Amino acid sequence: MEENKIKNDAITSRDEDFAKWYTDVCRKAELMDYSSVKGFIIYRPYGYAIWEQIQSYLDRKFKESGHENVYMPLVIPTSLFQKEKDHVQGFAPETLIATIGGSNKIDDPLIIRPTSEVLFCEHYAKIISSYRDLPKKYNQWCSVVRWEKTTRPFLRGSEFLWQEGHTMHESEQEARHETLSMLEVYNNMGRDLLAVPFVTGRKTEKEKFAGAVETYSIEALMHDGKALQSGTSHYFGTGFTEAFNITFQDKNGKMQHPFQTSWGVSTRLIGSIIMVHGDDNGLVLPPAVAPIQVVIIPIQQQKPGILGAAKELFSLLKAKGIRVKLDDSDRTPGWKFAEWEMKGVPLRIEIGPRDLANAVITVAKRNDGTRETIPLADCETEVNRLLKVIHEEMYEKAFQFLLSHTVEVQSMEEINHVLNDVTGYAKMMWCGKQECMDVIKDKYNATARVMPFNQIPFGEEKCPVCGKEAHKVVLVAKAY
Amino acid sequence: MEENKIKNDAITSRDEDFAKWYTDVCRKAELMDYSSVKGFIIYRPYGYAIWEQIQSYLDRKFKESGHENVYMPLVIPTSLFQKEKDHVQGFAPETLIATIGGSNKIDDPLIIRPTSEVLFCEHYAKIISSYRDLPKKYNQWCSVVRWEKTTRPFLRGSEFLWQEGHTMHESEQEARHETLSMLEVYNNMGRDLLAVPFVTGRKTEKEKFAGAVETYSIEALMHDGKALQSGTSHYFGTGFTEAFNITFQDKNGKMQHPFQTSWGVSTRLIGSIIMVHGDDNGLVLPPAVAPIQVVIIPIQQQKPGILGAAKELFSLLKAKGIRVKLDDSDRTPGWKFAEWEMKGVPLRIEIGPRDLANAVITVAKRNDGTRETIPLADCETEVNRLLKVIHEEMYEKAFQFLLSHTVEVQSMEEINHVLNDVTGYAKMMWCGKQECMDVIKDKYNATARVMPFNQIPFGEEKCPVCGKEAHKVVLVAKAY
Repeated sequence: MEENKIKNDAITSRDEDFAKWYTDVCRKAELMDYSSVKGFIIYRPYGYAIWEQIQSYLDRKFKESGHENVYMPLVIPTSLFQKEKDHVQGFAPETLIATIGGSNKIDDPLIIRPTSEVLFCEHYAKIISSYRDLPKKYNQWCSVVRWEKTTRPFLRGSEFLWQEGHTMHESEQEARHETLSMLEVYNNMGRDLLAVPFVTGRKTEKEKFAGAVETYSIEALMHDGKALQSGTSHYFGTGFTEAFNITFQDKNGKMQHPFQTSWGVSTRLIGSIIMVHGDDNGLVLPPAVAPIQVVIIPIQQQKPGILGAAKELFSLLKAKGIRVKLDDSDRTPGWKFAEWEMKGVPLRIEIGPRDLANAVITVAKRNDGTRETIPLADCETEVNRLLKVIHEEMYEKAFQFLLSHTVEVQSMEEINHVLNDVTGYAKMMWCGKQECMDVIKDKYNATARVMPFNQIPFGEEKCPVCGKEAHKVVLVAKAY
Repeated sequence: MEENKIKNDAITSRDEDFAKWYTDVCRKAELMDYSSVKGFIIYRPYGYAIWEQIQSYLDRKFKESGHENVYMPLVIPTSLFQKEKDHVQGFAPETLIATIGGSNKIDDPLIIRPTSEVLFCEHYAKIISSYRDLPKKYNQWCSVVRWEKTTRPFLRGSEFLWQEGHTMHESEQEARHETLSMLEVYNNMGRDLLAVPFVTGRKTEKEKFAGAVETYSIEALMHDGKALQSGTSHYFGTGFTEAFNITFQDKNGKMQHPFQTSWGVSTRLIGSIIMVHGDDNGLVLPPAVAPIQVVIIPIQQQKPGILGAAKELFSLLKAKGIRVKLDDSDRTPGWKFAEWEMKGVPLRIEIGPRDLANAVITVAKRNDGTRETIPLADCETEVNRLLKVIHEEMYEKAFQFLLSHTVEVQSMEEINHVLNDVTGYAKMMWCGKQECMDVIKDKYNATARVMPFNQIPFGEEKCPVCGKEAHKVVLVAKAY
């Protein structure tokens, strides 16, 4: 009963308080709930089903490109964790550590995995000995734990769900190719599944992953103009393979260290979807990832024929592989409209006495609220067409937003204007010194998101912070 | 290189040392590897792929019957864990406890979930308030941790993968029905997927789950005559819902506690498959669960036409949805035969110059080693037929083994004979007193596995231990 009350409450408006709007949507669309431990959220059925769609898409892409799933232990002995020194420095401050097992003190305390590089390396050291054993392209789906001070549902959790790919290669070239091709898989996922246009590129030295040679990322721009790092792909070189003494005999009989990559995306992607597409009525889900793509709402369902027609339509669409729900509960149509809008179902079908009499159905698109009637006879084709249209419109809208919130800057005033008035990415030429980025961080609380692949210089090719010669193009933004 | 050596080594014979045979198969079929923490194994691609087949089958069955997936936190605060006293007594001795987070001591130490009843209950208390909210039928796929002293791959691990269903119902009747219908899903999985005939029934008071009113289980009989509990389904009544103060307003406006179930199977099922079907050449996989159902091995592959024909066959079978592998590596056919036998691939296809000349292929069934030639033109139909035949033969063989190793007993001598000479289940009439089971446990290290659903009494209806009147039929066996 309490829950029903919540559902009917309006949510905070996006423009009034974006942060509150976000948590309202997370809870009222029933994506998640809090547990009694801070930062450990409960993924409710509707939220988990979105993750399952993402998993299903990526798992297929991974397998098609020759990757294999494995499962590594949940725990890492402290002594093992400390083998690669950059890595341990990056993660040690936020680890959860188990010290008691079966009522006894554990001599080498167990770190709950924050990421599994060291576990994969330890295993690879045992199973790789010849070039014949390469490449090894493993992935795992699991949860990881990072003890965070400030937590927000999906965006930053002490526990989150993710996939982590860890691969080993004969040559630097092959490993670099893997790093970028997995970034491409993620980028395509944005375009084809999430309707989110990512900005991609390389991270600066400061922002790269602990222990990586190079980190690439996909960054999404939220409605409030802040960036969200939504996935990363790392090239490791031989840093870990040397530390873990992983060697193979190459084709010429010479012993070598293999070249390594890792890459991952997490349930943070759900946060991206919410903050890129959502509106003041709640969630707006891209059709490809929506657990329910179409909801059918009978109007005056007690009248003869209505429910029968709605059920027939439901069966027809379901048989065609569309994820459809018939809401024939005893709520009013108005309540149902609000409920399924809150949950972001892409397409609503209304079927009432007048529709039935005219052999039509009324369809409403969640992304822009437009309604139209279509002949019942064409419903299958039309529903599929509309789902495609919705995807394209959502992507296009997000893309236009990204374009209009990415502005070239050549001075501190312009940086200030873009970060605080336009809100979005300040695209600047950078001298390459971290001190200049630190100034921007101090003044505007913004960071270098990526150095985009497109590095065409512009303007006077000077760093707006120090005024010195600048050859790198960097996107700077406030970020989650 | 070292690995290749291992592959060519013979494994220990089953009859010589079953325990050693088992771990040999686990490692040499590349199902798993050890990590540096005892009881936390690495699920290698071939082993994990078997688990993915099981997941895929069960997940579909769960969803078809209205269950929804969720994900609950990895950790349980000690204070929360202690809410249901039978439950905590059952699990406390084997918990792994995290006491340090982000370099600080945690006030309410966090237990790494050994099972998630209390987490589900805490959440259900928040989201259930009316009969309209029921039933709630949630499932989660995750890993759990139980700090075990003696561990064996897949059979008993400090960490293992599983699914745990947790459901809430309006009435006792509905909850009891859920308990038994999920047991039925597991039992059907044995028949249709694993080719393992389970014995099903209710556990005795002593053997039931900590906190359950009733526990039902599926038990498989291993080649060495020991039973393996392979899955359980519990009816909880209102024990937990009272302890966690979960209430709902029923249709008459009265407040009530809902009735609860939970049920789970784990990667232990992989152990069942190995020990029921395996032989002295290694793993024997039932086709429905085999990551590779058919392996094609070209003979004299350097001769013209051979490799082309093998590739064509591969494409044909793959297009028909058969999980097929073409081994065109530079190993000898003999090496490949041994390798894929070790890995238990159900069907091997050989294609050589003589086959090609006669427009036939040679097929060999892993389960009984029989070979035959079939016309190349019929290969698709024949392969599908043979995979069905293999499944049926494997099930039938296991079923005959189960029948011949289940013997009615009426005296201690007969119990001794069945447990130690026949090896298998001693089916006995039982007076119902735990003391009599304790005697059997002391003397023969055997326990009551289940009271089968078929409770037709036999013989003199006397307990062979105390000689008193006995009305319960119980299956007693040594067990893993």
